[in-house]
Order: sequence, then C-alpha cells, then structure tokens
Amino acid sequence: MTTVANDHIALDAAAQDLLFREAHTAHAFTDEPVSDEQIEAIYNLVKFAPTAMNQSPLRVVLVRTPEARERLVQHMSDGNKAKTAGAPLTAILAVDNEFHEHLPRLFPVYPNAKDFFTERPAREGSARLNGALQAAYFFIGIRAAGLAAGPMGGYDAEGLNKDFFADGKHSALAVVNIGKPGEGAFYPRGERLAYDEVVTSV
Amino acid sequence: MTTVANDHIALDAAAQDLLFREAHTAHAFTDEPVSDEQIEAIYNLVKFAPTAMNQSPLRVVLVRTPEARERLVQHMSDGNKAKTAGAPLTAILAVDNEFHEHLPRLFPVYPNAKDFFTERPAREGSARLNGALQAAYFFIGIRAAGLAAGPMGGYDAEGLNKDFFADGKHSALAVVNIGKPGEGAFYPRGERLAYDEVVTSV
Repeated sequence: MTTVANDHIALDAAAQDLLFREAHTAHAFTDEPVSDEQIEAIYNLVKFAPTAMNQSPLRVVLVRTPEARERLVQHMSDGNKAKTAGAPLTAILAVDNEFHEHLPRLFPVYPNAKDFFTERPAREGSARLNGALQAAYFFIGIRAAGLAAGPMGGYDAEGLNKDFFADGKHSALAVVNIGKPGEGAFYPRGERLAYDEVVTSV
Repeated sequence: MTTVANDHIALDAAAQDLLFREAHTAHAFTDEPVSDEQIEAIYNLVKFAPTAMNQSPLRVVLVRTPEARERLVQHMSDGNKAKTAGAPLTAILAVDNEFHEHLPRLFPVYPNAKDFFTERPAREGSARLNGALQAAYFFIGIRAAGLAAGPMGGYDAEGLNKDFFADGKHSALAVVNIGKPGEGAFYPRGERLAYDEVVTSV
C-alpha cells in the first residue's frame, strides 16, 4: 500500500489507496458472489453525493439470471464478452429520462423545477450528465465496499437499450462488472495527464 | 460524525462521513484561500479514477483574477452569482473535445483508438460522459482535501463557452465553488430515492 503523506489531503492514506491510488479497473474476477446487501450498502453510501437539483437520474439494473446475463453478453463488444460472462455480478447503469417526475419530492425548494424539463432533449441531456456523476460515485462506492469495478463503455447501446429498456424511458450509460479481482485482473496503469496539462488559471 | 458500522463497506467510517455521509454542497464560504497546491493534490489523487480508454477529457480552469471572476459571475444564473462572487476559489470544469489527440499516449494498447473519434459529435458525446465521471471524482477529491464543493449547473453555457473557450475546443460541464464552508453554507439535505426505486434485478 502507498502511504506517502500528502499534507493537503485530509482523507487518510489507506482510504486514498483504497479508492484511488491502489484501485484499478478489473478485467477478471473470482467466483465469490456479490450480494444485494453489498449493493444496497454501496447505494446507501453514495446516494448522498450531489447532482444538479438533486435530480438523481441514475438507475441500476443488476443482471442476475442466466437468461438476462446471456442477453447482456450478446450486446457487449467482443473484447468485453468473456469478462462480463465471468464476473460474479454485472450491473447496467442507466438513467431515467423521466427523472423530472420525482423533482417535486427531491427538490421541493423549487416547486416548479419539473417545468424546466418539459422537453425530452433537455431531460436527456441533464439525465446523462447527472447520471454520469452518479455512475462515478457508484464506481467509488464499489471500491469503498472492498470490491473491484470493471466499468465498460464497449457495448451496442441501441441493442442493449431496446432489449433491457423497451419502454424507451431509460438509457444505458455504462455497464460495470463487480467482484473480487481474480487472476490477471489488472492491466498496467495507463499514463495520466500531468497537472499542468489539465489545470490552468485565468 | 456518523459512525454507524456498515459491515459491507471496507472504507473506514470517518472517510465515509468525510466524502459522503456528512458532506454537503456548500453555498457560502469563509475567506480562507484555496491554493494551487491544494488543487494539485486533489488532481493527483483523483486522476487515477477510471475513464473509458483512459480518455481523461476533463480540463479545469481556476478563475483567479478579479477580471476573470467578474466575467464568470456574469454568466452565472442569478441564484448563483453572489455565492460565486464570494467563494475563495471557483473552477470551471470543462472537457477537451480534442481529447483523442492524447490517446496514442494515454491508451497505447490500442494504437488506433484515436480513429474511433474522427467525428466531432462522437468525440463530444464521449468527452461529456467521461468528463462528467471525472467531474464527480473531482468533487469527491475536494471533499478528500477537507474542503467543501459547491457544484453548479446554473449558468449560461453558451455565453461562458464563448467567453472562456473561444477556440471552440472546450465545453463547460459545470462550475464549482471551492473552500471552507462559511456561515449558512448548508441547506437541509434533500430526500434521496430509496434503494428499491433505483436498483432492480433481472
């Protein structure tokens, strides 16, 4: 474990390692199951992280049955099929494009907030942006639970959406394998952009 | 501090509180400055969190000069002007829509990854999704640094983009105030959706 002191970070070093520095995307998993109780614990931790006007558009579909798993694998790109088939749990992270129906309850301070989203394109854009924030929180939550996440963007989105969200109300954002990392789980860490390439001042 | 045991979460309770359970979006800040060194420490922690093909499209503009701050405040919606003007530091979180130029270096395992993004609309969509993941990691990083984040989606995106990103290469995702919470910083926590409303199994 990396335990280099960082005077500007209040979070303890073990937590920095668990969530960021020692965490890696996993590409292979052990057979150890991931329970609904673990997912509930993750959700109940990360649900507090912010979205615009508390929109909370993320929806999670745990793909548990052999039949549903087989359908999902068929929508994954070739490089993602085997690892998805072999993961103890795979979740589809999607957004509810009708999230605005919940705003009177989730954001009562603006009773008319729902009216900002009468047009579907505006709703879709906001759901995608805020759902992606929540997907990121969820990935961090998986790591907080001592599990490894294998998020994937490589799938046939149109096919997956038609198959799993036939009502047209939901749109997939990402698919994520969840479990304990297995043999060969980790690839070498890719280079990250340097601070000066990312952060500028005006 | 909440210190309820959660058998399914490996992250220690103090870290859970710091990042999620006790953390709140801040709407007012003290005058205590936020240094570039603090932002660098945050970036160097959260840069490891995953994006698809290590795209890493997030770019951060720290709005430091009085002249730039004044310009930024003018693009904020009315409800966000005063708190932005009063924050010790405000950052524009944006994406680089030409992120694919870095892929040969960031994702060398697929030498042709750059070619997936020859069309600007595909690049913009991927930059926005993956940039939003990184924005979420950045918000968590602000909290990890013992600071409060005040992310805002309420601004004139077209005006802000024209003013701060005249080259058309970057697009704003969010604006975030950063600092120590001041008097009246926190509003009551909004209700969150229940687990059963968010997570389903198939």
